[in-house]
This record gives sequence, structure tokens and C-alpha cells, in this order.
Amino acid sequence: MSVKTKWLNAIKWDEHGLVPVIAQEVGSNDVLMFAWMNREALAKTVELGEAVYWSRSRKKLWHKGEESGHIQRVHDLRLDCDEDVILMKVEQVDSIACHTGRHSCFYQRFEGNAAGGEWVTVDPVLKDPNDMYK
Amino acid sequence: MSVKTKWLNAIKWDEHGLVPVIAQEVGSNDVLMFAWMNREALAKTVELGEAVYWSRSRKKLWHKGEESGHIQRVHDLRLDCDEDVILMKVEQVDSIACHTGRHSCFYQRFEGNAAGGEWVTVDPVLKDPNDMYK
Repeated sequence: MSVKTKWLNAIKWDEHGLVPVIAQEVGSNDVLMFAWMNREALAKTVELGEAVYWSRSRKKLWHKGEESGHIQRVHDLRLDCDEDVILMKVEQVDSIACHTGRHSCFYQRFEGNAAGGEWVTVDPVLKDPNDMYK
Repeated sequence: MSVKTKWLNAIKWDEHGLVPVIAQEVGSNDVLMFAWMNREALAKTVELGEAVYWSRSRKKLWHKGEESGHIQRVHDLRLDCDEDVILMKVEQVDSIACHTGRHSCFYQRFEGNAAGGEWVTVDPVLKDPNDMYK
């Protein structure tokens, strides 16, 4: 096991070779988004100092912000007690992480109780997605 | 579709009937842990107002804190833009979420660069696990 990859081998990759990643904003501590990385994506993230995920739908590396410009600069990488989840502190360019043009992907709040409820959109769109992906 | 379950059906459960859940502390905004819920766990979480996860290893509902006393009181539930991840704001009893007796499960920080690195434990144990699970 080389020194270069020892830290990658410490991670318990799932049956698809992926690890879940939580992106949290430096300063505000807001949780911005959740995505997945494979070994190559995580190695690339460390190399660039910018978030590179594995897109499960497109089945390819996804350098976050490559189209929208909403790059995530990595400040800190944390691994959990079970070595199977990563928490990444990032500086979010333009403070917009979501493809809908919102600050965070978690903009739908549950309003209700055990008898029933609904997910209500509570956060504003900061930028028109049509202006983000041209 | 009944009013009672409409909000549960809005979630895109994975092939195992699960959804990933990020637990974040109210106030500090610290990310405490990451776990999974099935429909029953999420319904129970809303009913009790306390975090109930699905333990993938034990294959049963896991009322967080049932043994250790480190209950999580739920303040807010959020769903992401793809409807397949939940962010849960909680009040963490005793401020200890991790089974190792630490505040957060994300206590190992990456120190290194593209040439190599390691995961270093940087957060203290607040309570001896031997005193947590008796």
C-alpha cells in the first residue's frame, strides 16, 4: 500500500465503490448539499482543492461548478467513526450550491405531524437557473 | 394516497427502501452524524419528535439514545431538491452523538495533500463509552 493511497484505502467504500459526502459551508455551517464520490473523485478533490463528485446519474466525474461557476473550495475533510461517510467544509462560490439557484439543496421543510403533512419550499431562489447553465 | 402518508410518498426511497439522513445540531449547526431511515423510522421520528433510524447492520429500528440516553430531539426536517436526502435539525442530549463518546461522528480530519495523507483524530472523547452502554 503506497503512502499516496493509504488514506483512500482507510475509507470503507460501498458496494458501488462510493462514499456519501456532505458539503457544509465554512462560516455559516449550513449544510449545502449531499452527493457521492468514488476514489478518483476524492483524489481529484484533494488535488484541486475543489469538490469533484461522482455523478451517479451521468456515471462520470462531476467537477462541481464546471458549468454554473458555483465551485466549492475545500477547507476541511472529515471522516466519520465508521469510516464510511465524509463531511467536507467548503467555501461556496456565489453562496449558491443548488441547481435550482438556491443557497442549499435542503429548501423543503416538513410542516405537519404524525397525522399528515407536506414538504413546503421555504428558501428563495437567488439566481435564475436559466442564467446558470448557458 | 392518504393525507397521512402523502409526505412519505414524496420521498424517493432507494432500492432498499431507505433515505440518507444528516443530523445537524440546532444552534451550533455542527453536523453530528449520518444514518438511514426507512418509512417506518421516519414516521416514528415525526410521531415521537425524536430521531428513530433504521440500523442497516442490526436490520431493525434504532431509537437513537435508547441505550446511551443520548436522544436527539427533532426541531426541523428538510428534504433536498432531488427528494432523496433528509437534513434533520436536532437538539442533541448531552451534546454527544457519537458512540465513541464524542460530540460528532466526524472527528477524523484529513491532513495531507495529493501526494499522500492520513486521517487524524482531532476531537476529544467527552464521555467514556463504557459508561454510556451499561
